[in-house]
Amino acid sequence: MSNPVKITETVLRDAHQSLLATRMRIGQMLPQLEALDNIGYNALEAWGGATFDSCLRFLNEDPWERLDTLKAHLKKTPIQMLLRGQNLLGYNHYSDDVVRAFVNKASEHGVGVFRIFDALNDVTNLRTAIDAALKAKEKPHVQGCLVYTISPFHTNQTFVDLAIELKKMGVHSICIKDMSGLLKPYVAEDLVKKLKAQVGLPIELHTHYTSGFGSMTYLKAIEAGVDIIDCALSPLANDTSQPCTETMIATLEGLERDTKLDRQAMEPIAKHFLGVKKEIMKEFNLPGYFDVNPKVLDFQIPGGMLSNMVNQLKEMGAADKYQELLDEMPKVREDLGFPPLVTPSSQIVGTMATMNVIMMANGQPRYTMVPNEVKDLARGKFGKTPKPVKKEVLEAMKIKPEDMITDCAVADAKEPKVADFKKELAEKGYPNASDEDVLSYALFPPVALEFFKNNR
Amino acid sequence: MSNPVKITETVLRDAHQSLLATRMRIGQMLPQLEALDNIGYNALEAWGGATFDSCLRFLNEDPWERLDTLKAHLKKTPIQMLLRGQNLLGYNHYSDDVVRAFVNKASEHGVGVFRIFDALNDVTNLRTAIDAALKAKEKPHVQGCLVYTISPFHTNQTFVDLAIELKKMGVHSICIKDMSGLLKPYVAEDLVKKLKAQVGLPIELHTHYTSGFGSMTYLKAIEAGVDIIDCALSPLANDTSQPCTETMIATLEGLERDTKLDRQAMEPIAKHFLGVKKEIMKEFNLPGYFDVNPKVLDFQIPGGMLSNMVNQLKEMGAADKYQELLDEMPKVREDLGFPPLVTPSSQIVGTMATMNVIMMANGQPRYTMVPNEVKDLARGKFGKTPKPVKKEVLEAMKIKPEDMITDCAVADAKEPKVADFKKELAEKGYPNASDEDVLSYALFPPVALEFFKNNR
Repeated sequence: MSNPVKITETVLRDAHQSLLATRMRIGQMLPQLEALDNIGYNALEAWGGATFDSCLRFLNEDPWERLDTLKAHLKKTPIQMLLRGQNLLGYNHYSDDVVRAFVNKASEHGVGVFRIFDALNDVTNLRTAIDAALKAKEKPHVQGCLVYTISPFHTNQTFVDLAIELKKMGVHSICIKDMSGLLKPYVAEDLVKKLKAQVGLPIELHTHYTSGFGSMTYLKAIEAGVDIIDCALSPLANDTSQPCTETMIATLEGLERDTKLDRQAMEPIAKHFLGVKKEIMKEFNLPGYFDVNPKVLDFQIPGGMLSNMVNQLKEMGAADKYQELLDEMPKVREDLGFPPLVTPSSQIVGTMATMNVIMMANGQPRYTMVPNEVKDLARGKFGKTPKPVKKEVLEAMKIKPEDMITDCAVADAKEPKVADFKKELAEKGYPNASDEDVLSYALFPPVALEFFKNNR
Repeated sequence: MSNPVKITETVLRDAHQSLLATRMRIGQMLPQLEALDNIGYNALEAWGGATFDSCLRFLNEDPWERLDTLKAHLKKTPIQMLLRGQNLLGYNHYSDDVVRAFVNKASEHGVGVFRIFDALNDVTNLRTAIDAALKAKEKPHVQGCLVYTISPFHTNQTFVDLAIELKKMGVHSICIKDMSGLLKPYVAEDLVKKLKAQVGLPIELHTHYTSGFGSMTYLKAIEAGVDIIDCALSPLANDTSQPCTETMIATLEGLERDTKLDRQAMEPIAKHFLGVKKEIMKEFNLPGYFDVNPKVLDFQIPGGMLSNMVNQLKEMGAADKYQELLDEMPKVREDLGFPPLVTPSSQIVGTMATMNVIMMANGQPRYTMVPNEVKDLARGKFGKTPKPVKKEVLEAMKIKPEDMITDCAVADAKEPKVADFKKELAEKGYPNASDEDVLSYALFPPVALEFFKNNR
């Protein structure tokens, strides 16, 4: 019996976020939107992730208007967004009313698939966003994520248990989100088999090619029955992005799991985005290509993050401490209870490791200086870490038992905040700000204000 | 039972030939030769292919001295070379005595694995080189190649039959040589299974990542029992090169086919070659990176060749005929009996297609102007094409039945030539030329003379 693999195309979001620093403009997407819409993709990931921030901060584009434009041209294929649960698209936890307002507006403007994750896999952080998406009147598809990581405490069953929890919360499908490309082919096969057997929801697999497993991991997952894979069109595929759309289609042609998608129809689209890639590489002086990085496998540090950390080291005049940093990173991650490394936990763990290396180079012990966000992570403010933070580390950070947030990961989320943001914005000179502008401001206050100054 | 996959490392030959126009110098290899030797690779591909030509033409290096240096540092791991049968490393058919002298000298200087192929898969062109290698007194390993291609007349059984012929000729192992990355994962699985069942020799798989199948194709071949895979270290992996060594090792770790090779020991080596890559990209102004090219799948044109052909079009003022050229290429290939596209047949078919496009744009029929090497291919001078050349094409080329070479693909190979080359070289001012210099001259007369002028 024919059982086509479905494909979610990431060229409009994750592919350029991964390879081109999220710098693609709506004008560069526009010429091929109808063609993309006609392919028959499961979904087009096109909004959320870092695109919202990048629109406001770098591209002088209103992210809500981008969504409207996308929706006007994508009439058949659902628009997918990536949402960080209670973090939404910002770097803090937001109040429940902000989360609900944001999800409702996104749905109203055309998001058809909400892919929702929490960096710590703490379902408390997912509850409000999932509930809001399930209740949105446009009835979008709601997908819950397993943020994939490796540690002595993570097994495939850990993720299956999480998927069962997500199912209880009402999600329509499950995504294995392998943001660093750590999921090995035969591990993926086992994980997908277990999920298919024990969860009973459609399973989507999302990986990055960083360590080179990408397409092999998809192949074994497909053999194990995965329903959907995330791919990027050839010019924006592989390296730190997703496996190549056309290659995966060609691999399955004529077989039981043939995607039935038309590779020929993708040629002009790929040609267009090759041109766009070259434009963006030139305009923003970006490399656009990355070597396979097998270090990811041993240090579990995503490629982009590693280069950021090396930059931090350089700025502090300690560029020669590279190897120490590589060794320190897994140590800090263990100390902090093995959080998966993804925004924002990756930045938090990375900054702490960098500071430890600098301190030790100056004869000081680890955790002599601790940034506030690290303390917040240790206190449980961002949710529950997979394992408890080590007692001696809490002591070194001078965190007392009464500082710990144990009852709820989002303790102050119940307090309504939308009205406050609206009032603040009025005081800053925008008394008639739209609901959308209030949300942009709630997520990125100074960046949004700068954008309003130039555009309102 | 443990059954480790063996790896042949290509970083010293095919990887830089594919990504860096064969521009790596011996001095750039030297610092890591001992480290490479200690890994435990099946072989290190380090000589032959285009390196001989490149040494003389671009790098002012004596290829024979390079081989000596390699051998001095690689004490445990066999040095592998790629040899084009009766073509040796040049672009003509050479006499049997030249072929034997070349193979003997290469063996004497340290080649431990002779990988021998013919562009047309015509075993007549392989016989002398294989026999010479089998008789070399150093007892090298002799590998015969199946040059992989796709056509309405090629099935997996075609290649199995060829492998059986090669076995009868005495080769020690068989290589599936997929130079354009056309071998799909599930087709590879079937082919390897058939070869293992019907041939009874070790099977090695060589592919390029051009169309993105690379690692998936290896994975399915490994599951089917392939013995050896060709890989390149991470900085020179993927794109138009081989799949990544470290990734393939990591994929199999802890499983039945674990390679037992140490990825950690490869880190300093990879770091070194990343630096070399950047040096070469800068010195020769080369891109070093290539997008996945799904066009290869439909037009079966290797990436490097496509760009050459586009350049030819431009030089003839017909850059706008790109699509016509893409369409013409498979037509010419069919007219000429479906030769696999690899040096030199790829150049021959490509030039003919380009000329047809130009002619037709000028209102002339196909095959109005035919380069001599196309006529030679059509006449059978390079060996037997998989199918006979079309009768009407022979007529259009004005080739008469009496022009055809049907008895032997290398009709004049029996006539000894080494002494002639030696005499010629003496006349040009090098009466005491070494045997090695005579062979260099035999293969690349003007290039070798220029080299001698600067170095002898």
